[in-house]
Amino acid sequence: MTSASTRDHFEHLLPPSWRTQVSAWLAEDTPSFDYGGFVVGEAPREAFLLEWHMEEGDTFEPVKHVATVRGKARHLLLGERVALNMLARCSGVATKSKQIKDQARGYGYKGIIAGTRKTTPGFRLVEKYGMLVGGIDAHRHDLSSMIMLKDNHIWSSGSITTAIKQARKVGGFSLLLEVEVGSEQEANEAIDAGADIIMLDNMEGDQLVDVAHRLRDKWYGKRKFLFESSGNITENNLQERAINEIDILSTSVVHQSVQHIDFSLKIQKPKDV
Amino acid sequence: MTSASTRDHFEHLLPPSWRTQVSAWLAEDTPSFDYGGFVVGEAPREAFLLEWHMEEGDTFEPVKHVATVRGKARHLLLGERVALNMLARCSGVATKSKQIKDQARGYGYKGIIAGTRKTTPGFRLVEKYGMLVGGIDAHRHDLSSMIMLKDNHIWSSGSITTAIKQARKVGGFSLLLEVEVGSEQEANEAIDAGADIIMLDNMEGDQLVDVAHRLRDKWYGKRKFLFESSGNITENNLQERAINEIDILSTSVVHQSVQHIDFSLKIQKPKDV
Amino acid sequence: MTSASTRDHFEHLLPPSWRTQVSAWLAEDTPSFDYGGFVVGEAPREAFLLEWHMEEGDTFEPVKHVATVRGKARHLLLGERVALNMLARCSGVATKSKQIKDQARGYGYKGIIAGTRKTTPGFRLVEKYGMLVGGIDAHRHDLSSMIMLKDNHIWSSGSITTAIKQARKVGGFSLLLEVEVGSEQEANEAIDAGADIIMLDNMEGDQLVDVAHRLRDKWYGKRKFLFESSGNITENNLQERAINEIDILSTSVVHQSVQHIDFSLKIQKPKDV
Amino acid sequence: MTSASTRDHFEHLLPPSWRTQVSAWLAEDTPSFDYGGFVVGEAPREAFLLEWHMEEGDTFEPVKHVATVRGKARHLLLGERVALNMLARCSGVATKSKQIKDQARGYGYKGIIAGTRKTTPGFRLVEKYGMLVGGIDAHRHDLSSMIMLKDNHIWSSGSITTAIKQARKVGGFSLLLEVEVGSEQEANEAIDAGADIIMLDNMEGDQLVDVAHRLRDKWYGKRKFLFESSGNITENNLQERAINEIDILSTSVVHQSVQHIDFSLKIQKPKDV
Amino acid sequence: MTSASTRDHFEHLLPPSWRTQVSAWLAEDTPSFDYGGFVVGEAPREAFLLEWHMEEGDTFEPVKHVATVRGKARHLLLGERVALNMLARCSGVATKSKQIKDQARGYGYKGIIAGTRKTTPGFRLVEKYGMLVGGIDAHRHDLSSMIMLKDNHIWSSGSITTAIKQARKVGGFSLLLEVEVGSEQEANEAIDAGADIIMLDNMEGDQLVDVAHRLRDKWYGKRKFLFESSGNITENNLQERAINEIDILSTSVVHQSVQHIDFSLKIQKPKDV
Amino acid sequence: MTSASTRDHFEHLLPPSWRTQVSAWLAEDTPSFDYGGFVVGEAPREAFLLEWHMEEGDTFEPVKHVATVRGKARHLLLGERVALNMLARCSGVATKSKQIKDQARGYGYKGIIAGTRKTTPGFRLVEKYGMLVGGIDAHRHDLSSMIMLKDNHIWSSGSITTAIKQARKVGGFSLLLEVEVGSEQEANEAIDAGADIIMLDNMEGDQLVDVAHRLRDKWYGKRKFLFESSGNITENNLQERAINEIDILSTSVVHQSVQHIDFSLKIQKPKDV
Repeated sequence: MTSASTRDHFEHLLPPSWRTQVSAWLAEDTPSFDYGGFVVGEAPREAFLLEWHMEEGDTFEPVKHVATVRGKARHLLLGERVALNMLARCSGVATKSKQIKDQARGYGYKGIIAGTRKTTPGFRLVEKYGMLVGGIDAHRHDLSSMIMLKDNHIWSSGSITTAIKQARKVGGFSLLLEVEVGSEQEANEAIDAGADIIMLDNMEGDQLVDVAHRLRDKWYGKRKFLFESSGNITENNLQERAINEIDILSTSVVHQSVQHIDFSLKIQKPKDV
Repeated sequence: MTSASTRDHFEHLLPPSWRTQVSAWLAEDTPSFDYGGFVVGEAPREAFLLEWHMEEGDTFEPVKHVATVRGKARHLLLGERVALNMLARCSGVATKSKQIKDQARGYGYKGIIAGTRKTTPGFRLVEKYGMLVGGIDAHRHDLSSMIMLKDNHIWSSGSITTAIKQARKVGGFSLLLEVEVGSEQEANEAIDAGADIIMLDNMEGDQLVDVAHRLRDKWYGKRKFLFESSGNITENNLQERAINEIDILSTSVVHQSVQHIDFSLKIQKPKDV
Repeated sequence: MTSASTRDHFEHLLPPSWRTQVSAWLAEDTPSFDYGGFVVGEAPREAFLLEWHMEEGDTFEPVKHVATVRGKARHLLLGERVALNMLARCSGVATKSKQIKDQARGYGYKGIIAGTRKTTPGFRLVEKYGMLVGGIDAHRHDLSSMIMLKDNHIWSSGSITTAIKQARKVGGFSLLLEVEVGSEQEANEAIDAGADIIMLDNMEGDQLVDVAHRLRDKWYGKRKFLFESSGNITENNLQERAINEIDILSTSVVHQSVQHIDFSLKIQKPKDV
Repeated sequence: MTSASTRDHFEHLLPPSWRTQVSAWLAEDTPSFDYGGFVVGEAPREAFLLEWHMEEGDTFEPVKHVATVRGKARHLLLGERVALNMLARCSGVATKSKQIKDQARGYGYKGIIAGTRKTTPGFRLVEKYGMLVGGIDAHRHDLSSMIMLKDNHIWSSGSITTAIKQARKVGGFSLLLEVEVGSEQEANEAIDAGADIIMLDNMEGDQLVDVAHRLRDKWYGKRKFLFESSGNITENNLQERAINEIDILSTSVVHQSVQHIDFSLKIQKPKDV
Repeated sequence: MTSASTRDHFEHLLPPSWRTQVSAWLAEDTPSFDYGGFVVGEAPREAFLLEWHMEEGDTFEPVKHVATVRGKARHLLLGERVALNMLARCSGVATKSKQIKDQARGYGYKGIIAGTRKTTPGFRLVEKYGMLVGGIDAHRHDLSSMIMLKDNHIWSSGSITTAIKQARKVGGFSLLLEVEVGSEQEANEAIDAGADIIMLDNMEGDQLVDVAHRLRDKWYGKRKFLFESSGNITENNLQERAINEIDILSTSVVHQSVQHIDFSLKIQKPKDV
Repeated sequence: MTSASTRDHFEHLLPPSWRTQVSAWLAEDTPSFDYGGFVVGEAPREAFLLEWHMEEGDTFEPVKHVATVRGKARHLLLGERVALNMLARCSGVATKSKQIKDQARGYGYKGIIAGTRKTTPGFRLVEKYGMLVGGIDAHRHDLSSMIMLKDNHIWSSGSITTAIKQARKVGGFSLLLEVEVGSEQEANEAIDAGADIIMLDNMEGDQLVDVAHRLRDKWYGKRKFLFESSGNITENNLQERAINEIDILSTSVVHQSVQHIDFSLKIQKPKDV
């Protein structure tokens, strides 16, 4: 797994319910009997976790011995596929996150690169974990975290100001509030009403820079807020989107349709077999 | 979603426990309060499910109005992200499955294209479902389905013959039994001992064709078995792997690191708002 | 239930998993057979939900007919105790929340009154719901919401600045970050490092006012932050704690050891019985 | 926690499913990532569990060092709030239970003081546990335990006798059966039909004493039964309700709206930090 | 299903959690895809539930058309096996319960015939339900219901009296308390200490009758208690065990190793197929 | 437990979710408090697991000391009933399975004796486990394993051939496919369409032998398939059904209405008590 820093223990983020989730994954892979387990038994075995790098023309060799795992033969085989499936995807997200961040930094972008909530159902914890390991921002975790108001919320409430007021009534001071706006006028209304983050929709390039400058000037010293830009940001258009006037660039390209990293678990043949 | 046939009702495959799984996904996205739901309320709304096609240089327009969904505003928004996340991945798997199958058929391959068990933990039902919709074989569902014996099982039992005998003792007549072999000699032992499927490992091209021919000749009329080939089959090398001597080509390329299909749910602004 | 506003539909805040929680409560009250249900059967019945007000010397009469419930006799009795137990506690929290808020407003306090995370295990959603209905702020919902750094976090990291930096690495831009400080110097460090909320511990009265003023002056236009005060705030000392220099007063007095509201369900005897 | 006896191991009452319940409480408090846990890490720490006594005018000092807890820093903090929330409520129930019992004994009452089923949904095990620790009777645990027949059951069956007969048909010999009666005549019918416990409703003072005496005399040597009195028994009216003719006084005052006991967990700052 | 009375609605005994249990059974039978459901589709179908009677030499014909079920073809087939498996066992228990009861009544026995806790793990609700339908007593449901003290409890406490005192401390007035005794002397101690039910172990025939008589005489008008006899009571020795001095005869013969009743579901072929 | 071989470790078949199932069984037996556990405490105890053999006229003595269990007194008692209930049924199935198999072998039958899916809801894993221990075939585990097509599937699809084609589309190569046929003609159609197993319904004795011979001759060297016979096979008619032309005899007689094996757990009285 590509780690942004060898010092951080991201595993300390895992909640106690993590074990329950892993148990459900194991149950998915062995709903009733484990026939292979019967054949292989419980002899102690050692296995090497290997990372492979496969690209066209590559000689096909493992690039890293990642870890050594020890346990009963049938336990290693029971957990093997679930563990590798998780690792392959998590590492893929971490790697792509790091690449996109490095690319943006290469363009001189100093803001935040963030993921989205477009994760695989039931697998969000792992994908957000991968983003953190890759050094980017995981963005809001779910609908109960940061509040985001979009056009539907605004229609229903009558105005941006009313929608923000309604949201604050229940979200209180402890949740950030983001509003998606389609024009400079709407942005002004949202900022005035106390939005913490302004998602500037349908604006690009110079227009986006101009609007951002005018808004910052207008509200300087009066309101504190961040600008976010989102929507179809990929490695191909990152350069034109990585404008320092925008505080946050969020993109699902770091975790959706991401190339997995190939790992395998090689159980070592004992000498006495 | 790319469907291999407009006549098949794949939704009839879903088990009753499917609802429980969907509930867990919704709980992942709204662990406690639904602040946006409070703002948007329960007014009846209509939403269009749209499929987009995005490639470089494309004009950015929806390519299909897939469905119309009706419900309370907050319910549409609560389910929106979970539903789209699932749909985007499932459709991606279905589309890639169909592409690979069509490519193989284009090379004159008449055998089975199958997926693997390298699915996202907790999300296998959806990914296997996508394979079926895409017209390929979902391969064994889990460790409690078809038995597969690999090198570890064989070491532990002492020989291929013993391992197969052990597996049959518990798997019985109702489960197929596959053995991974590394040589023609091992293949002969496995076939003789009654394996239903022979995974020919570490063999390629002409050697593979020759071995397959000799084995079929030798056992003609005596044993019934299938040959499977697996391992790093991609669109790039599919032509050289799509040998009709091999009955089953299994590859995770149809469901792992697959490009998702972009869908969105556009809630229609009512006239009175 | 005492409602701060008859217009707000707080029930729109409830997540889909709410039903699962209610099912667990019903299972707690009827783990196996429902003997009373067998006796009472499934005749249709109407029941009045009544609110009572009991204080010393009161004549003992219901003060409100809150609702009418209809259903099968055994279903009404099965759900009766669970529903009343929930309602009694939720309404108690709402009522106390409103009282404390009104008391603070009576002292001219314009800031936020908030609850805490000191809720009954497994029952937080209901108690936080009661706070919202009572018109106060529910404060952070759980450890996965707003980040709060206390002395232990700071020791472990070496300094306030390092602790904040560590927390931001994983919490990102979408979560607010609060730091508990014990001195003006620590407050300055926390503000400088970007804390969103400063919990001023061990400070009271004039000292607290002075510190708050100096900090606001010093950081005016440079940083945006809120001051929170907490710790043993009750109706008895609310007046001296309700200082407008403090943005947030948080107290468990609104939801812990709160007087419940007495409700009963009176199933109406049908004429034909 | 106030314990009625230092010899009794009430923890031996806990069922194996107790762990599942605690896990659910921890999941409520950390639904996804544990950001504080990332900051604080897994250094070994020692923490003191302290009990506080807070009343007006009190000097604010811990009254007892209850226990010492050792573990990894992040684990102590993860469990801290859940454990304290549970302890505060359980101890509050135990303390109030003991007070009410002692008060009744002070009036010369020799019967049973019992709680009720008016507990917090999902938290009954803890509250009933607190009653036992406080030395009172926990009363029936749920609808599947002792059978209680009230007016609705009697209407539905046509008469007290029929209702009791119906209930016995399914409850059998192994469950006690209580009937709520509104008159001496009804009490006689219930006793005659074999009720184990008679809840005397709507009777007070001398009338209650007289009725109880007459019923005991009438059925002496023929039937064995207990009298229960319930309904709005509090510390204020306990003296007039604590009549020795009544075997059981049940009241929710020992567990509903009870003052919690204040505990805190003080993690000790290690010397090397 | 053999019903003791066509008037009783035993289904009113089922708790809300019953549905969860049925869902788990369906998930056991269809852990992932329902392949047959895909083939059969959702055409509406009608099915007859038929009861068969099979004994040697019988002509093989259904003895009863029990019910008609309507639904989608795949739903009928999904639920068929689970429903029949449950019904076959429940009806077997009901039928055997009724037979044993009728046999005992034939011998002039007027006491209670009861089952035991020796039920199939996870299936107790159904088996106890079958006992009730068959007209016998289901005996205590679980370890949280009626308390039973055996030799181990008595050793641990030092004496029968101490063990009963300990049990009452936590079980209170609302649970019955049974003690297993091995001699008349132990029975006297248990009765004196307030046991509700005395299980007379290791006593048979005339000795049992004599002991029971002496105990009843001794405690007449002082204590109310029941005598239970258990242990290897079958149809073969029921006559000698059915002594009216014993109030309760409990036996697992009514629910363990019981002959199932054969049911089948015949889906009717529609005319248009 | 009657074991077919002392060498096989059938416990290696158990999936990780097995523990969850056992926990649910323990929760069924102790839904709330464990009153007996409070009395008996946690003193270390040793218990002997004894197997009994009870038939008419037998002297009543344990036939085997199966195992010694050590643990805390209350834990032994908590698990005792659940463990014995499971063991009694599992051993009963294993014993009956072995008897039926031995009986069939005694008649010279060389084919497979298999169980069915007519198991106790929620308890299938244990009953199938018992079959394996008894040395017979457990048959398909659930609807997601081997596909079985019956008359309803065939009506719905229009023909056997179409039904098989539909089933293969989703079941693929990795699941066996069985078809129930009512005539030689239908058998031919099923074999031709690729069915793996042919269930010959409504055929007996010589007719069955003749049909099986003709079918084998006709398809020799062209198709590989097995014949299964099922339906009311018991020890009484096993001889006439055990025809070697039939590959598989499946019967629920090995696991339904099976005589349980009697086990008890005798907790040893320690010397110091």
